[in-house]
Amino acid sequence: MSIARKSTETARMRFARLLKTERLARGISQEALAELAGLHRTYVGSVERGERNIAVDNMEALANAMGLDVSDLLKAQ
Amino acid sequence: MSIARKSTETARMRFARLLKTERLARGISQEALAELAGLHRTYVGSVERGERNIAVDNMEALANAMGLDVSDLLKAQ
Repeated sequence: MSIARKSTETARMRFARLLKTERLARGISQEALAELAGLHRTYVGSVERGERNIAVDNMEALANAMGLDVSDLLKAQ
Repeated sequence: MSIARKSTETARMRFARLLKTERLARGISQEALAELAGLHRTYVGSVERGERNIAVDNMEALANAMGLDVSDLLKAQ
């Protein structure tokens, strides 16, 4: 993790990055994660690309779908 | 912090609780915090009451306005 990225990365991009990292670590597709979280199948892709100003309820749904706490997907490293 | 609350508290309510705690710890009003964060003056009150499904950009704006990282306002205790 480059120092520069930690200071300039927005919370939106940090969530996008950690969501993708955790999803891939579990070997699940964007569609499968969306289904687990009760969200539209293309939604996860748009979140991972940083296109969505995602709201807290959906952030929690995605985290819980992977057995994580929402803070796990926003932790500053 | 009661054990029961930690497990049943939604991320939205946790953010609401920590936002209020940090704001009061700094002795600033809801209106002053809203202004610092560039948000409408009544917005902070609705977030603190858990009425808002707040989005990540505004979560970051509120955290930064108090010199915090967004993860500080979602940390599981």
